[in-house]
Amino acid sequence: MIRKFNIKYIVLFCSCLNGITLVQAAETLPSWNKGVSRDTIIQFVEKVSNQENEQFVPEAQRIAVFDNDGTLWSEQPIYFQLAFTFDRIKKLAPDHPEWQTEQPYKSVLEGDIKTALSTDKASLLKLLMVAHAGNTTTEFSNIVKQWLATAKHPKTGKHYTDMVYQPMLELLNYLRANGFKTYIVSGGGIEFMRPWSEAVYGIPPEQVIGSSVKTKFEVKDGKPVIVRLPEMNFINDKAGKPLAINQHTGRRPIAAFGNSDGDLQMLQWSTAGEGARLGALVHHTDEKREWAYDRQSHIGGLDKALDAAKKNNWLVIDMKRDWNTIYPANNE
Amino acid sequence: MIRKFNIKYIVLFCSCLNGITLVQAAETLPSWNKGVSRDTIIQFVEKVSNQENEQFVPEAQRIAVFDNDGTLWSEQPIYFQLAFTFDRIKKLAPDHPEWQTEQPYKSVLEGDIKTALSTDKASLLKLLMVAHAGNTTTEFSNIVKQWLATAKHPKTGKHYTDMVYQPMLELLNYLRANGFKTYIVSGGGIEFMRPWSEAVYGIPPEQVIGSSVKTKFEVKDGKPVIVRLPEMNFINDKAGKPLAINQHTGRRPIAAFGNSDGDLQMLQWSTAGEGARLGALVHHTDEKREWAYDRQSHIGGLDKALDAAKKNNWLVIDMKRDWNTIYPANNE
Repeated sequence: MIRKFNIKYIVLFCSCLNGITLVQAAETLPSWNKGVSRDTIIQFVEKVSNQENEQFVPEAQRIAVFDNDGTLWSEQPIYFQLAFTFDRIKKLAPDHPEWQTEQPYKSVLEGDIKTALSTDKASLLKLLMVAHAGNTTTEFSNIVKQWLATAKHPKTGKHYTDMVYQPMLELLNYLRANGFKTYIVSGGGIEFMRPWSEAVYGIPPEQVIGSSVKTKFEVKDGKPVIVRLPEMNFINDKAGKPLAINQHTGRRPIAAFGNSDGDLQMLQWSTAGEGARLGALVHHTDEKREWAYDRQSHIGGLDKALDAAKKNNWLVIDMKRDWNTIYPANNE
Repeated sequence: MIRKFNIKYIVLFCSCLNGITLVQAAETLPSWNKGVSRDTIIQFVEKVSNQENEQFVPEAQRIAVFDNDGTLWSEQPIYFQLAFTFDRIKKLAPDHPEWQTEQPYKSVLEGDIKTALSTDKASLLKLLMVAHAGNTTTEFSNIVKQWLATAKHPKTGKHYTDMVYQPMLELLNYLRANGFKTYIVSGGGIEFMRPWSEAVYGIPPEQVIGSSVKTKFEVKDGKPVIVRLPEMNFINDKAGKPLAINQHTGRRPIAAFGNSDGDLQMLQWSTAGEGARLGALVHHTDEKREWAYDRQSHIGGLDKALDAAKKNNWLVIDMKRDWNTIYPANNE
C-alpha cells in the first residue's frame, strides 16, 4: 500500500513538473499554437540541452540551420531579392539607354516581371550580375540597406523586413536561449542578407551562409577594398547547402529548418548524424494570412522534400494550424 | 603649493595604476619578454576593450586573425602539411605500383623531398590532390588525427602539434579573455586544421579559414556523406586571404598576425579599417631555438611584407628578442 502511494506520488510529481515546463514553453513560443509542432520542438530542445538526459548535446555542437526565403520571411509573389534586383535595374537604367530595347531589361523597366523571368537563363543571370556586382562590398551593403529602408511589398505594403515570421523569430530566440548557435543557410546572396540579419533575426554576419559572387582584392587610391565581380562564385541551393555548411562551420547541424526542395539535402545531411536530430519544414498552407503553395509552385516548390519528410519523420509545420500570428505586430 | 602636490599625487596615482596593469599583463603573457612588442599588444588590447577609451571596440567586432604556418606553429624545413602529404603518399603506395617509377611519387617514396618539390607544378598539385582527396570529410578528419598522433618532426623529434608557439598560445588566450574572437586564416587546408585546432589553439572549427578542395554531396548506402574531390576549390593565400575572411565572417578584423608575404594583403585589409588596428608579423630570427629566415626563404618568405611593416607601422615581433620560450614546456 505504501509502495502504491509512492508511485502515485511520483507520477503526480512528474506531471506537475511537466506542467511547469509546458507553461514556461508557452511563454517562450507564444505565437505557436499548442500541438504536435510546438511539442516536438520543445521536447527536442529540452532533451539536447539537459545534461541529465542521455541525448544531451554539448553547447558547441548545438548548431541549428535555417533557410531564409519561405522559412524565416515570405517569398511570394517573387523572392524578395528578385524585387531588389528589379528595383536596382530601374535605378541603373538612366546610365544604360540600350536597356530600353534589350531583353530582359526592357520588360523589367516596363514592370512586366513575368516576361522578364521567362527569358533564357544566361540573360537572366547577366541581369542578376549587373544588379549585384561592380561595386565594393561596403558600397553593396549600403545599397541593400537603403533599399530595405524604402521598398515596400506590392501586396502587403509592408517593408520586406517586416514580413519575417514572428513564430520563427521566437524560435530563433528560444534556441539561442538554450545554447544553440543559429545560422542562416539560404540560396539568397550572402552579402544581401548580412547587412540586416543581425538587427532582424539576431544572427550575426559570420553565421550567415548564402550564394555569392566572385570577389577581388584591390588597393584603390591607396585604400584596400573588396570588389564584387559579375560572376557567380557559389550557388547555395540543394546539394550545395550541406557543402557550404561544412565549408563555413566544419560541423554537422543537429537541427535544420527549411520549406522547399532546395532544403532537402540540408535536412538529409543534418538529420543523418548520430544522436538527437530535428528536421522541419514550414508548409505554406495559409492563403488568407500569407500564401498557400507547395508541390506545383515555381517559387519555393515543396514536393520531394514533403515526401522525404514522411519517410524521415521530419516535422511539417502547418502554418495555418500551428501559428497564431504570422508577422510581427509592431510594424506598420 | 597645494596645487603642485595635487599634480604630483595624480602623477603618482596614474603611474601606480599603470604599474598594476603591467603586472597583470606580465602574468597574462609570461613567455613574452618586456619590451615594445609586448607593450604594443597590451596597449592595443586595453584600448579597444575599455569602454571608457575613445578607441573602444564593441565585443562583436573584436575579430583577430592569425596565419598558421610560421605564425602559430613552425613551418621548417617544409610546411607540416607537406610532411603529411608525403607520409600519405607512402601509405597509399602499395596500391599504386606505378608510383615506383613515376615522378614526383618516385622521389617521395625514396625520401628525396628536394627532387619531388622541384617537379612541375601540375604534377605536384596532382600529388597533393591524391593525398588529400578521394575520401569523405569524416574519413579525412580521422586520417589527419591519426597522422598527428604518430608523426614526429625530423629535427626536433616532437609531435607537430607540440611545435606550436607558447607565446602565441598565451596571446590567443589573452585576446579571448578580453572579448576577442580568434580566427585562423591559413594557406593550409581548412579540413587539415579543423580536426585539432580546438584542442591545440582553442579555436573551434567554425573559426578556421583555409584552402580547400571541391566537395560533393552523396547518399552512399542510404547515408548522406560529403566526398572530397581531387580538385582545388580555393587557395587561401595572398590576395585570397581578405576575400576568404570576408566570405566567412562578413567582418573586417581589427587585428591580424602573420609572418610572410602570403599575409601581406590580410594585414593591409585588416589595418586599413577605421579606429584602432593592430597588424603584426612574427619575424623568425632565432636560428638556435627555432629557425632564422626572411627575405630569401622559399618557405615563409618575408620580403614585401617586411617593407610594408615599416611603412604601415605594423609590429614586427622579433622571435629571438621577444620570446623567452618557443614551444610549450609540457611536451616530450
